[in-house]
Amino acid sequence: MKLYKELVTIIKDENRVSINETILEQHSKGLAYHTPVKPDIVVFPTTTEEIRSILALANLHQIPVTPYGAGSSLEGHFIPVNKGIMINLTRMNKIIDIRPDDFIVKVQPGVTRNQLNQELKKYGLFFPVDPGADASIGGMASTNASGTNSVKYGTMKDQVLGLEVVLANGKIIKTGGMAIKSSAGYNLTSLFVGSEGTLGVFSEVTLRLKGIQEATVAGRALFSSIEEAGKAAETMLKSGISFGKIELVDDRTIKAVNAYKETNYQEVPTLFIEISGSDQSVQHDIAVTQEVAMSEGCTLFEFENDSLARAKLWEARHHVAFAILAANPGKGMLSTDVCVPISELPNAIIETRKITDKFQVDAAIFGHIGDGNYHAVMSIDEDNVGKIEKINEHIVQYALKKGGTCTGEHGVGIGKRKFLSQEHGDAVKVMKTIKASLDPMGILNPGKVF
Amino acid sequence: MKLYKELVTIIKDENRVSINETILEQHSKGLAYHTPVKPDIVVFPTTTEEIRSILALANLHQIPVTPYGAGSSLEGHFIPVNKGIMINLTRMNKIIDIRPDDFIVKVQPGVTRNQLNQELKKYGLFFPVDPGADASIGGMASTNASGTNSVKYGTMKDQVLGLEVVLANGKIIKTGGMAIKSSAGYNLTSLFVGSEGTLGVFSEVTLRLKGIQEATVAGRALFSSIEEAGKAAETMLKSGISFGKIELVDDRTIKAVNAYKETNYQEVPTLFIEISGSDQSVQHDIAVTQEVAMSEGCTLFEFENDSLARAKLWEARHHVAFAILAANPGKGMLSTDVCVPISELPNAIIETRKITDKFQVDAAIFGHIGDGNYHAVMSIDEDNVGKIEKINEHIVQYALKKGGTCTGEHGVGIGKRKFLSQEHGDAVKVMKTIKASLDPMGILNPGKVF
Repeated sequence: MKLYKELVTIIKDENRVSINETILEQHSKGLAYHTPVKPDIVVFPTTTEEIRSILALANLHQIPVTPYGAGSSLEGHFIPVNKGIMINLTRMNKIIDIRPDDFIVKVQPGVTRNQLNQELKKYGLFFPVDPGADASIGGMASTNASGTNSVKYGTMKDQVLGLEVVLANGKIIKTGGMAIKSSAGYNLTSLFVGSEGTLGVFSEVTLRLKGIQEATVAGRALFSSIEEAGKAAETMLKSGISFGKIELVDDRTIKAVNAYKETNYQEVPTLFIEISGSDQSVQHDIAVTQEVAMSEGCTLFEFENDSLARAKLWEARHHVAFAILAANPGKGMLSTDVCVPISELPNAIIETRKITDKFQVDAAIFGHIGDGNYHAVMSIDEDNVGKIEKINEHIVQYALKKGGTCTGEHGVGIGKRKFLSQEHGDAVKVMKTIKASLDPMGILNPGKVF
Repeated sequence: MKLYKELVTIIKDENRVSINETILEQHSKGLAYHTPVKPDIVVFPTTTEEIRSILALANLHQIPVTPYGAGSSLEGHFIPVNKGIMINLTRMNKIIDIRPDDFIVKVQPGVTRNQLNQELKKYGLFFPVDPGADASIGGMASTNASGTNSVKYGTMKDQVLGLEVVLANGKIIKTGGMAIKSSAGYNLTSLFVGSEGTLGVFSEVTLRLKGIQEATVAGRALFSSIEEAGKAAETMLKSGISFGKIELVDDRTIKAVNAYKETNYQEVPTLFIEISGSDQSVQHDIAVTQEVAMSEGCTLFEFENDSLARAKLWEARHHVAFAILAANPGKGMLSTDVCVPISELPNAIIETRKITDKFQVDAAIFGHIGDGNYHAVMSIDEDNVGKIEKINEHIVQYALKKGGTCTGEHGVGIGKRKFLSQEHGDAVKVMKTIKASLDPMGILNPGKVF
């Protein structure tokens, strides 16, 4: 109650400081399987100055602080395992400055991806990182999110030019700037991107933008085996074509999508492809892609030019996780997220299907093949949690053995902490040294990353 | 002499530990204008283990250590201002592992850019970062180097996937890995890239590679004013064409090149352009580029398809700095390196010509217009050093006022230290906190960055 009063004094608006049970409950869990924990209190700041005051207070009393964006994390990033203050950033949702001639936008952290792209459309621009969910820009920066577009446009680390960060001690710093390139001192922007709220709270994010392409086509290439599909994708990537998206979905996952969406896609390993650019270059790139696909054993190659058919195709791809959830009502979900050197992807997917079959678990398996990143989405409940975690462990160990990473885009959060030392060895000590030097009281999102 | 004996004990080869005056002299200065300082001793390690032993010794006795690559730094990065041990990494020049199917290579830090590309050619691959000089990969990673290709392929921070780093205390860590993407913990790779030898010595670098494009054309577009050329470049970039290179060179610089190379390029503001891709897309992109150029006041538009003519064209562009040096024999050189939001570039170049004219100084002015990064190269000697430094100061202040950075690709080194706090404010304190936590004795490349 003392904390509540102190926070109300800072925020000066009782409606933005909550100890309401329903609100606490809403902030206790993510989309995934992690054990819920309710925060003691939820604050809804609207300015950097308010965040600053909250952190100064928390640091003084050593109260844990957890930032919350759109709530779409898959690794429990915002579950306040040590309770304390939850900073809900959804009311900091202003687009501060669009500079179309500089291909730059500055936003508050609560702005969501769709909100931003809706606004950018009128300038012929768009923000290319697309993790599927309508995540907040602050949250996406926190986890170094990416998604289907990253084969062409990279991840958040490639698109965030600068940050305003409130540090654990309430000091405000600005990293990076509005220049596309800089070699001026340590790259703090890239250090904070992906730090999952453990080094500071983002209060502003400056992003690079891209021009909307003249033409976009989407299509499917069907194969008799994962190996063939993988080999074809590898050859396509080597051909120098700049794919907008290139996704591999296995036969069993197509089957789940058909059942869920009432579609009738042929149930074989499939590459979902998108190519964008000028009309002419897209036509050329499709032709080359088809040629490569056919020479690698493709059995059917179909492209959709019109935007409706394209949307339907990508909806099928984006709904594979929901297909698994729909088939298992009332259960939670675990999505694996390893990333391997790209030539290893087909074998990794085959291995993953083997292990889920061995444990008799239903899984949607699909991957960003251009990056070597893939997911196995499985429904989870109290009865099968042990089994699912064993599968996840097996998949991570396989990826690490091949030189890969335990998380390509979801982040460490709670679920991947146990793998961090195995992946990075003594480099984790350096990470911990940095954490201790910037947050000596350990108030920022405790229980995550390490 | 005691240090010499201790280092010989570590290295076990007297030929790789030197206190020869000529050798010390060779390691005392860079290509630029900074005051030379000789190290006490130069060591030529061949293994990570040797670097480890050198650093452990230096840390114990608090001896400064400065890493040395190809010696092409323009900001005095390897001038050992506090003397001590110079680690010359040129004998660590092995290409350790090429994985063409993964578009990855692992190299020792002394491998040079040309050496690497020569080897990669046989796989149809290349390493896209090109700072002009035949720099070492370790040095390029240390300064977050880039160059003319970065508008298409980004900077070193975008291409370095992982590092092996020997820390100040002699501990060896590995950052990153072989996955194209990762969200597993803090992005230490991006922290070490651009840290200019002040946080650790790189002993291995893992790089992303690109496929050699089917077709490449280069060309020139001439304009009557810098404003027109700048506006045209902006419109070209917005058209969605993926330029390989797009460089703006001012009229006076073309004149200097003509005098130096005995060429007869028309002496007007010029865009040097390169487009690569499939035959068909390149043809299309040239047509669009020409159309845009003409609509923005281009007076002549010429493209070269054959590789010889293309090489000649880029030689002219790459030799502008030499043109200035040749016109001023025996003098040193200062290259400014600011980067501004891209729409600010034409005005920044006009402002730069104004200030060099005001001080009656000869300067080559040219820029990576796709990134907003440009250089004014001026000859420098004892007589004019004050004047040249005033010009540099003016150019940096102008860039910072426009939201830019004091260094786009050369790094801070010695010359830009005085601007760092102005550019980054309290973020510099965070950089210093990190430096102190990883190198508490301050042995690593003292007198640089801060």
